[in-house]
Amino acid sequence: MKKHSVLILGGDGFCGWPTALRFSSLGAAVTVLDNGARRSIDAALGTQSLVPIRNLHDRVEEWADVSGRRILHRHVDLAEDYPALAELLRSTHFDTVLHFAEQRSAPYSMLSTGGARYSVDNNIRATHNLLAALVETGSDAHLIHMGSIGVYGYATTDLLLPEGYLKIRAQGADQREIEKEILYPGQPESIYHMTKMLDQHLFAFYAHHYGMRITDLHQGVVWGTQTTETRRAPGLTNRFDHDPVFGTVVNRFMLQAIEGKPLSVYGSGKQTRAFIHIEDMLTCLTLAAETAPARREKVRILNQFSEICSIANLAALVSRVTGAPISHVDNPRQEPAENELDVDRTTYRTLGVKPRRFTDLLGAELADLPGLLGRSDPPCAPDLERSA
Amino acid sequence: MKKHSVLILGGDGFCGWPTALRFSSLGAAVTVLDNGARRSIDAALGTQSLVPIRNLHDRVEEWADVSGRRILHRHVDLAEDYPALAELLRSTHFDTVLHFAEQRSAPYSMLSTGGARYSVDNNIRATHNLLAALVETGSDAHLIHMGSIGVYGYATTDLLLPEGYLKIRAQGADQREIEKEILYPGQPESIYHMTKMLDQHLFAFYAHHYGMRITDLHQGVVWGTQTTETRRAPGLTNRFDHDPVFGTVVNRFMLQAIEGKPLSVYGSGKQTRAFIHIEDMLTCLTLAAETAPARREKVRILNQFSEICSIANLAALVSRVTGAPISHVDNPRQEPAENELDVDRTTYRTLGVKPRRFTDLLGAELADLPGLLGRSDPPCAPDLERSA
Repeated sequence: MKKHSVLILGGDGFCGWPTALRFSSLGAAVTVLDNGARRSIDAALGTQSLVPIRNLHDRVEEWADVSGRRILHRHVDLAEDYPALAELLRSTHFDTVLHFAEQRSAPYSMLSTGGARYSVDNNIRATHNLLAALVETGSDAHLIHMGSIGVYGYATTDLLLPEGYLKIRAQGADQREIEKEILYPGQPESIYHMTKMLDQHLFAFYAHHYGMRITDLHQGVVWGTQTTETRRAPGLTNRFDHDPVFGTVVNRFMLQAIEGKPLSVYGSGKQTRAFIHIEDMLTCLTLAAETAPARREKVRILNQFSEICSIANLAALVSRVTGAPISHVDNPRQEPAENELDVDRTTYRTLGVKPRRFTDLLGAELADLPGLLGRSDPPCAPDLERSA
Repeated sequence: MKKHSVLILGGDGFCGWPTALRFSSLGAAVTVLDNGARRSIDAALGTQSLVPIRNLHDRVEEWADVSGRRILHRHVDLAEDYPALAELLRSTHFDTVLHFAEQRSAPYSMLSTGGARYSVDNNIRATHNLLAALVETGSDAHLIHMGSIGVYGYATTDLLLPEGYLKIRAQGADQREIEKEILYPGQPESIYHMTKMLDQHLFAFYAHHYGMRITDLHQGVVWGTQTTETRRAPGLTNRFDHDPVFGTVVNRFMLQAIEGKPLSVYGSGKQTRAFIHIEDMLTCLTLAAETAPARREKVRILNQFSEICSIANLAALVSRVTGAPISHVDNPRQEPAENELDVDRTTYRTLGVKPRRFTDLLGAELADLPGLLGRSDPPCAPDLERSA
C-alpha cells in the first residue's frame, strides 16, 4: 500500500474509520470525507455509541500522535455537495476510492417515510455523484463499494448465491434456448438493501459505458468492534452500536450476555445470515484494493463474509460462552421467518483469506467488552474452549 | 372515466398535457402537477417547441372555455417538495395517479455530467417520493408509470422481449435446475433508460412490501403531435420538439421533409425501435386506467407500442410520401449499430387496441405540420396511397 493514495468516503463510520487507520498504517496516503450523518442520526434517534468515541478531527490528531501518519479529512456531503467532490478528484490523484458513504441500517430505512426517503436520496445520489465525478474528472481510480449480501435477498435462496452474476437459460426469440450471464436478480427485503441493488445497476452501467474499474463487495453482518489500530490509543476507539436500529444482532446478544439478560432471538431464530469479523473485513478490503478489475471489464462482485450462521445458533454460541439464557420474542422486522443460505466466496478463498469464526473470537470480544464500556467485570467469564 | 379522480404528474409535458385533456374529456376529475422542468430545460438549451405553446395556466383556462371542464393545476416539484405532494394526497382522493414527471430524453442524460446527475436525482427522487407519499397517506390509488422499451436495452434482443418478466432456468443450490420468473434483466443504453429501470425495481419493492397497485408502461417512441382534444383550440396545442436532444427521429424526418432537406439517418439505420402514435398512447393509457392489478399482485408491466420499424425503413417511408432524399450521417449516439427487436404486446392486443401505423397516419401528420408551424404549404404533397 506504500505510495498508494486512497480516498475513503464515509471514513468516520463503523467500517470507514478502522479502514482509514488500516490503510494509513500500511503506508497509504489516506484522505477521509464524511458528512457526519451517522452521528447526526444517532442524535436524532436519541442514542449514541455505547463506547465513547472522539470526533473525527480529534481522532485524526490522535492517530497522527500515535503513528506519525497524517490522515487528511474534510466534511463533505457527497449527495449535496458535488462541486466539492469534483474539485477534490480534480486536484488529487487517487489510486483507490473506498465508498462507505451510505445510510447503512435496514431497520432505519423501514422505520418511517423519512428514513426510507433519506436512504434513497442519500445513497443513490452519493453513489451517482461519485460515478459522475470520476468520469468528469477523468479519474482512473479503482472504485470499491461496500454492498451487502442482503442485495440478493433471503426469500430466494434455493439458488447458490453466486458472486454477483447468475448463469441462466431462457427461451430465445426463435424458440431456441439462450444462455446468458446476468446480474443476480435480487429481491432485497429493505429499502436500504434496495439502494445497494440500485447502486449495483449504476455500477454496471458506468463500467460498461465508461470503462471504469469497480469492485462491489457484498458483505455479511460485521461483528467485533476494535481492530489492531483502534486499540492503539483510547482516542481511536471505534463505535459500538447497541440501539435496535443500528446495533446488530451480535452486539445485542453480547451486550445482553454482559448485562446478565436473556438473549432475545427474533421469531424462530431460523433466519440465517452471513457474518464477518471486523479484522477479516480489513483483510478483505486490503486485498480488494491490491487487486482490481481491468478497465472495460464488468464490475467485479465479491461476497465478503467469514461464516454463515442462523440467529438461533449464534444465540446458542453466546449462551454456551456466557451461560446467558435465550428467549424468543416476536420478530419486529419484515423478513422471511427462516431461510437457507449458501453463498459463493471463491474469490477471497483463492486470495488466501482464512476466515475467523465466532468460535475463534467470541470469547475475546466478550472479554474485551466490559473494559470498553468502562465496567470492571463481565458477569460471567467467557470460556469458549471449555463450553464449546 | 366519470367519477374517476386522476392525478397527472408532469401534466404540462408532451405526453402529460394531451393525457390530461383526454381524461378530462372523458369526464374524469383531473389534477395536474408540474414543475415546469421541460420548459426550463428548453430555455437552458436555447431552444423551444417549434409550435408555439401556451403556459400551463393559460392552457387550462382555454380548456375550461372550450370544454366547460376544469383541470386543477399546481406548480410542484416532486423531487424537491415532498410535503406539498403528501399534503395533496392527504387532502384529495385519487383513483389513479399517472406519473410522467421524469426527465425523458436519453441524449440529455448523456450530454453532460449535469444532465446525467439531473436525470438520476430528479427521476429517482420523484418516483420514490411518490411511492413513499402514497404509503404514508394510505392512498389506494392505482399508480401508472410511463416507462420505456429502452429499459430492456437493444444489445440483447436475441430474446423475445416479454412484458416485463422473464422465465429462466438456473442451477439450484443442490445442483438441480430451478425455474424462476424474474424482472427482465435489462441493459439500458442511457442514464435516462437506467433511471426507468431503477424505477421498476422500486415499484417491485413497493408492490411486494406494501401491496400497492402499480402498472409500468414500457412505451416506444411517441410520434404525432396533436390529438382530438389539442386540436379543439389553438391555445391547447401540444409541443413539437425539433432539437437534437428532445426531438425524436420521426420529428426530425418530418421536419426535414417539410423543409426540403435530406432525411438524416444516423449510422446504418438498422437500429430498430418500437413506435406509437400519440392517439394510440391515449387509448392505451385510458385502458390502463380502466383496468388495474389487484393489491398484493406483482407490478403489471405492459409493452405499449404500435409497430416496430428500423430507422432506415422509417426514412424510406417518409421519403416515399414526400420525395425527400435520404442521407446517412455518423451516429452521434452511443447505441448498437443495428439490432433486432421482437416485443410482446399481448395485453393491449387482448384489450382490443388496434394499432395505427406509419402507413395509416404519416400522410395526415405531414399534411398538418406546415399549418401548425404557420407555413402555407408543404414542399411536396403527402400522398401515401399513391407512393406506398
